[in-house]
Amino acid sequence: MGLKEELVTALDADRVVTGADERRRHGTDEGWHSAAAPDIVVLPRDSEEAAAIVKLCAKHGAPIVPFGAGTSLEGHVAALDGGVSIDTAQMNRILRLSVEDMDVTVQAGVTRRQLDERLRPEGVFFSVDPGADATIGGMAATGASGTTSVRYGTMRENVISLTVVTADGEIVRTRSRARKSSAGYDLTRLFVGSEGTLGLITEVTLRVQPTPEAMTAATAAFPTLDAAVDTAIEVLAHAIPVARMELADEVQIDAVNQHFELDLDVAPTLFFEFHGNAAETEAQAAETQGIAEAHGVLGFKWTADEAERRALWHARHGAYEAGRALRPGSQGFTTDACVPISALAETIKQTKEDLDASGLIAPIVGHVGDGNFHLAILVDPDDPEELQRAVDLNDRLVRRAIAADGTCTGEHGVGYGKSAFLELEHGAAAVEMMRAIKTALDPSGLFNPGKVASRIQE
Amino acid sequence: MGLKEELVTALDADRVVTGADERRRHGTDEGWHSAAAPDIVVLPRDSEEAAAIVKLCAKHGAPIVPFGAGTSLEGHVAALDGGVSIDTAQMNRILRLSVEDMDVTVQAGVTRRQLDERLRPEGVFFSVDPGADATIGGMAATGASGTTSVRYGTMRENVISLTVVTADGEIVRTRSRARKSSAGYDLTRLFVGSEGTLGLITEVTLRVQPTPEAMTAATAAFPTLDAAVDTAIEVLAHAIPVARMELADEVQIDAVNQHFELDLDVAPTLFFEFHGNAAETEAQAAETQGIAEAHGVLGFKWTADEAERRALWHARHGAYEAGRALRPGSQGFTTDACVPISALAETIKQTKEDLDASGLIAPIVGHVGDGNFHLAILVDPDDPEELQRAVDLNDRLVRRAIAADGTCTGEHGVGYGKSAFLELEHGAAAVEMMRAIKTALDPSGLFNPGKVASRIQE
Repeated sequence: MGLKEELVTALDADRVVTGADERRRHGTDEGWHSAAAPDIVVLPRDSEEAAAIVKLCAKHGAPIVPFGAGTSLEGHVAALDGGVSIDTAQMNRILRLSVEDMDVTVQAGVTRRQLDERLRPEGVFFSVDPGADATIGGMAATGASGTTSVRYGTMRENVISLTVVTADGEIVRTRSRARKSSAGYDLTRLFVGSEGTLGLITEVTLRVQPTPEAMTAATAAFPTLDAAVDTAIEVLAHAIPVARMELADEVQIDAVNQHFELDLDVAPTLFFEFHGNAAETEAQAAETQGIAEAHGVLGFKWTADEAERRALWHARHGAYEAGRALRPGSQGFTTDACVPISALAETIKQTKEDLDASGLIAPIVGHVGDGNFHLAILVDPDDPEELQRAVDLNDRLVRRAIAADGTCTGEHGVGYGKSAFLELEHGAAAVEMMRAIKTALDPSGLFNPGKVASRIQE
Repeated sequence: MGLKEELVTALDADRVVTGADERRRHGTDEGWHSAAAPDIVVLPRDSEEAAAIVKLCAKHGAPIVPFGAGTSLEGHVAALDGGVSIDTAQMNRILRLSVEDMDVTVQAGVTRRQLDERLRPEGVFFSVDPGADATIGGMAATGASGTTSVRYGTMRENVISLTVVTADGEIVRTRSRARKSSAGYDLTRLFVGSEGTLGLITEVTLRVQPTPEAMTAATAAFPTLDAAVDTAIEVLAHAIPVARMELADEVQIDAVNQHFELDLDVAPTLFFEFHGNAAETEAQAAETQGIAEAHGVLGFKWTADEAERRALWHARHGAYEAGRALRPGSQGFTTDACVPISALAETIKQTKEDLDASGLIAPIVGHVGDGNFHLAILVDPDDPEELQRAVDLNDRLVRRAIAADGTCTGEHGVGYGKSAFLELEHGAAAVEMMRAIKTALDPSGLFNPGKVASRIQE
């Protein structure tokens, strides 16, 4: 029997898909890199079915490309060497929840919003919030983060344990549910951020947080980028436990003003959110205001009222939509550099000069507490010359970030879009170490070939 | 030339040591496992010298056993197959510090107290506090933690980057200084907790924290263990950011009363520490008191005064010393199980019944927020039968913890003392995965043979 026939025998026929549209969709993500369709799409329902699929793919030498929500940005899901896309859409059960232990176990295909709805009535929440409604499995595989990691950490700090299917088709749990452990190598963190190249993530145990009693939001517009970043640094030095601290540059604010008919100061702006009880969040906002004023803030607004809070943050939440409206028909080419916060203002300033010289338009937003910022370069998808200018701009940005002891990707991952930068960032010996680990765990190169540091097998 | 002669050529003669006493000391830690002396002890001063040593050891096929302060507990430093002990005592420089970035880079041999002295005047501190004055390299290698991880995390959350020497003698930095990154496999976390089996850690970049403006301490004695643990669970559910939350059982409190002539309630007791500004720490203590009262606390005392704070915590700080005084001449055999907090009270209760039946004496202290607790079994070091009873008790405790979805070691590591439990905890396939990684990075088994999941090469 051929691979497809064996897959149909292992699953139901309607969970083995070969239609061109579905294949194309599964090889395409939200980034600008070329898509590549898999030959077959399969939809397992649990770890056992996933293991059976992996064994069949191994037998037939067919590459395996995991697929969650398809919201990645660096070509993670492109089937560069063909093969089988394992879509986790039907692995969408929340398996257990313990409010006492503050942890939850989900199948890989559960989405962020689905989890949020399940957790909300229990008085707990899961903190990691990339922009998209990604799957938890995809977020673990990518090492995702978002606006809350300044307080609650990234996926690396919030994944307690994983269930993975290995290249042999074995089902392995990487760790117990104990809150901490020193029992052997940290397989959990090795798989977080491995982008499906070491094995297939089928279940994830996550840390959850108590829902804060109160939330307060604030915005602060500054005369200069330096003043905004210095304020952020001082907020951290004062141990103010900001839940969110987001930066938007004046181009982004201008876009928001135009798109939503607002009248914000067109200036570098920080958006804050504070979690705690009412007294704590008010005190945090007041202390933050004091710091912002010492740095010449143009206007500091804060509120504990929920409707006003949403209004204050509207400009941040609508940033991407407003940005794209600056140039109708354009596509956002998103960068992801991350540097030590002491180098953040200078890195952004040099990047803005470079951007101006390039003739491209790009609003900037940043998770300033982490030193991570994104340019959304507005490119005409049908203009290869313009796309090349964006590629070149990103290339120089990555080199600038690495020179500042930063990274080419703070949260989007490597996919095949950033593979070329790994050696520059980590050195040849470190990349060789990654390749040795890849070869040890996946000797025949079954899992997501051509991604991260792995090469397409000849 | 033989290995020793080549080492003398590479270093100075006085940094290549072969005296019996020094060799014995370097093969001995603070645990109860048999020591094993290395053949040679060397003291490099930097990564380059360490790399030269590794290359010479590789050339001569001599095993390498890293040595920090010798405070490990599971036989980590025993040279089971002879070879060279690399002592990091002269790698004791603090290389850089950035208060803006809240990070510091140190050589592996810098000790916790040495770092604390350097950081204190800068208004920052490093949070991880195992009992001993360990080296930072040793703490990274062991995946150490202590009393503050409930708030600030373990070494896994606080190591930003490592410099390691590989089996090829290459010097590799595992990661940039960016606060977060998704650029490839997480080599940093793979080396944290690898106990010198994958390479030699020579430099560590750590996250530091702002020194809190104010600290408040509290103690609370409870009628039952359940009441104490339920209080701890509720404190976490209320998102009270306790900096420390330690449990001591009634045996431990009795020991402290006797040794320090105190008059504490002989009952399960929680010790709290709160960090923040004066208003915050008072509010945290008051909220915690309310929770404790709802659980029938016998007495809740709290203070913001530094001298009184030290007095309140005296019983916790002197726990080990007081415990040993219960039985003069005894040695503490320390266990390290860690379970989900929902299983903590039941696991401790079953363990206490087992302890009573065994005829052994063991005060219990625990990092209750993490579900981690230690029995200090007081054994006569010259009585093999009694030691065997302690070994058996620990064996049953580990099995009980693993059955509760916990771990055999929360913070002490595996060494060779807990290797036998890895398969029970993780399953055979996960341990095989660890062995595959070990073989990939250290094909000739040079680094710390016989530790964690590695076997002595035949």
